[in-house]
Amino acid sequence: MKFRRTLLLSGIALALAGCTQSNANDDANANAAATTEQAPNIIFLIGDGMGFEFISAYRYAMSERGANALAPTPFDDMLVGASTTYPDDDTWVTDSASSATALATGVKSYNGAIGVDADKHPQQTIMEKARELGWHTGAVATSQVNHATPASFFTHHPSRQMYNEIADSYATTKFGDSWSFDVLLGGGTSYFDRDDKNWLPELSAQGMNVVTDMAELEQAQAPVLGLFAPVGLPFALDSEPYLAELTRNALRILDAEQAQSGKPFALMIEGSKIDWCGHANDIACAVHEMHDFAQALQVAKDYQAANPNTIIVVTADHSTGGLTLGQGGEYQWYSERVMDIKATIGTMVKGLLERPRDQWRAYLEPLLNLPVSEAQWSELVAIELSATNDRGDDADLLQDALVKLTGELTRTGWTTSGHTAVDVPVMASGPYAERLRGYQDNTDIAKVLLEIVR
Amino acid sequence: MKFRRTLLLSGIALALAGCTQSNANDDANANAAATTEQAPNIIFLIGDGMGFEFISAYRYAMSERGANALAPTPFDDMLVGASTTYPDDDTWVTDSASSATALATGVKSYNGAIGVDADKHPQQTIMEKARELGWHTGAVATSQVNHATPASFFTHHPSRQMYNEIADSYATTKFGDSWSFDVLLGGGTSYFDRDDKNWLPELSAQGMNVVTDMAELEQAQAPVLGLFAPVGLPFALDSEPYLAELTRNALRILDAEQAQSGKPFALMIEGSKIDWCGHANDIACAVHEMHDFAQALQVAKDYQAANPNTIIVVTADHSTGGLTLGQGGEYQWYSERVMDIKATIGTMVKGLLERPRDQWRAYLEPLLNLPVSEAQWSELVAIELSATNDRGDDADLLQDALVKLTGELTRTGWTTSGHTAVDVPVMASGPYAERLRGYQDNTDIAKVLLEIVR
Ligand SMILES: [Zn+2]
Ligand SMILES: [Zn+2]
Repeated sequence: MKFRRTLLLSGIALALAGCTQSNANDDANANAAATTEQAPNIIFLIGDGMGFEFISAYRYAMSERGANALAPTPFDDMLVGASTTYPDDDTWVTDSASSATALATGVKSYNGAIGVDADKHPQQTIMEKARELGWHTGAVATSQVNHATPASFFTHHPSRQMYNEIADSYATTKFGDSWSFDVLLGGGTSYFDRDDKNWLPELSAQGMNVVTDMAELEQAQAPVLGLFAPVGLPFALDSEPYLAELTRNALRILDAEQAQSGKPFALMIEGSKIDWCGHANDIACAVHEMHDFAQALQVAKDYQAANPNTIIVVTADHSTGGLTLGQGGEYQWYSERVMDIKATIGTMVKGLLERPRDQWRAYLEPLLNLPVSEAQWSELVAIELSATNDRGDDADLLQDALVKLTGELTRTGWTTSGHTAVDVPVMASGPYAERLRGYQDNTDIAKVLLEIVR
Repeated sequence: MKFRRTLLLSGIALALAGCTQSNANDDANANAAATTEQAPNIIFLIGDGMGFEFISAYRYAMSERGANALAPTPFDDMLVGASTTYPDDDTWVTDSASSATALATGVKSYNGAIGVDADKHPQQTIMEKARELGWHTGAVATSQVNHATPASFFTHHPSRQMYNEIADSYATTKFGDSWSFDVLLGGGTSYFDRDDKNWLPELSAQGMNVVTDMAELEQAQAPVLGLFAPVGLPFALDSEPYLAELTRNALRILDAEQAQSGKPFALMIEGSKIDWCGHANDIACAVHEMHDFAQALQVAKDYQAANPNTIIVVTADHSTGGLTLGQGGEYQWYSERVMDIKATIGTMVKGLLERPRDQWRAYLEPLLNLPVSEAQWSELVAIELSATNDRGDDADLLQDALVKLTGELTRTGWTTSGHTAVDVPVMASGPYAERLRGYQDNTDIAKVLLEIVR
């Protein structure tokens, strides 16, 4: 089954009402040469929640404080501009669904929208335009594949909360005899194999190569649905990093398809959980997700080096958490302490709740691995948990305490459990990268990419 | 006296030990044409503390929330990259002195350094190199002119705290028959006219046109020392904005010099108090200083439009306060509420301390001009001041309370009373602007500018 590719003729065409035309400014001089040649492959990397602060944090975390030199990162030679991210809503602060819709379709929408405009009309995505022209397509995420960002590139739903319906869309949307993707990798088995429906055997019977472990993935050819966790993949800090390996396999699969057809591919790669660490105000978690994302970018850059007719675009949908590198008046950010931390705050909270209080310090000491003072230990082990013994409330109390402790000891500042409205970085290299220079809106990035798909 | 220009022959040459050579990469292709032509004028605008967040805040504050369109700003067409700002110290977080030294000389140094390297050796600045080549030079600041940023472009001192010595350097440093500047505008009379020394009559007698009000400035020709306040100029939110008018006059004076000599000029313009509002965690203060800075940039852009052989560079020395547009979990930033506030927090604190508690609400209500709840008013007017009736402590308590209140009501987040390590924007237009594209270090910006000065 794994290597069989059955082309089904009974495709279900998705009706796209009100699709916008790409109306990006065509700079005749800059692109005259490019437009007469073969369209480039598109590798679009989205760091969910990855504001400029996360780039700074990652670079300094990789570097040695006081050495007066910085470690190189794959981001260093890629910055071309910045982007506004506000939604078509009564707020400047976007969510991932609205921003991913903007990045996928060039159309602003409301927070929660998946590939639909303010009137809930489906808008054509980069991936759909590519598919209609016979391109190869794919997505990789460290969240479930039916989470807001990948979903907005392939499906159309009025709410990001419609996880099952989004999974159904992936399973049933066809372009001629093909699904909307050649390769789709991430977490999410629990949405594809659920009480009321198990898509996996059905998809396999239709010719989809469904894989659920990395060894299987290494051998798989298109079309591939790879689901490696019930919901999101584990955090890089708590487990193995996944994204670079998933990216390498997605590029291998798409490159093989391209070699057969001569058609370009479009691949979206999301560092999904940078955002989740931001929501948790967990700096060590964030820096390790950034490293996973950076490694995936390096895989993309290596592919581009061997295949120069490839544009790489890197951006964020928004920034998360109000992260900054400086807290409480001290002119310091202890990058090496951030790298010393051995587990996510979420894992530590879970560990504490499973243990009696007199074991907390012994459990936490090697995981936090920070110069916690005796006064700070006393405060932590004396924390008043909820009178009702509500595990959710207790988890929140412990989470807050560990955010405060790690924030003070590393001098990392956070302002919110949500998103912020600050502009995000735009990076690009390869053909058309010039078109993404300077300040722009997130919709402008999609407009350039929609123009490339031809 | 005002219009007389006495050229003194007895110049005091500053011994510059260990001046670094400009060793920026010369991109032969990009600049072949430019280097054979007349060197361009340099207008270098530094927003002190102006991280990306301040640009985002300013743009959204100028725009109407919910209108799904942004107001244009003078920054929009200028972004070319970003810059790291770390000092040559055991920290990633720079102060203004170290970063200004990097931006003025291309050499990293320790926090507090004014135009000297880690060994306290003076380093040649852009302004000094320009002066040696017969260029015209100047600086405009909204702080005192002997504050860290302008001081690092013209003087060399082991500590930014040496305010009197810095004023003395301005007064006595000569290049041949000229001072180190043709025009120096900002605050600082109290350092030039102090108990132990009054430089002002002495400088006037030597031919300096010393002006202390804006009407005098309008008529002044080089050399001009314009001091318009004892220390820093008043905040734009509490008073009139100054920076655009000072910039217009500085450009008028330098343009007249250039018309006479045929030599280019280099002008540094600092939006000094963006940083001061950041330290105070005062968002309305910050946005109004940003507007003043943006207006000054517009004056520079208008000059460049009429005089195209002019490079404009805009950057920040660091970001201040850990500002972000999002706080406490709500996906919102109330830009219009920020614009509704009528006074700086500093002014409001002073007003409260001058009044009995029963007048506080009536005093604050029209100045805060925010939807403060009855519970918030009760909390504020019941605030426990210091038992010792220490005015400084009381001011801090009231400051903290107003930061908390304005933060919650506008959803503005802050994390520190100090600086942060996050990367800052780099903007440029005109000749050589291409050289500032992408990620770079703050020293790289100076290296490009030092190369232009020839
Ligand atoms: Zn999020
Ligand atoms: Zn400062």
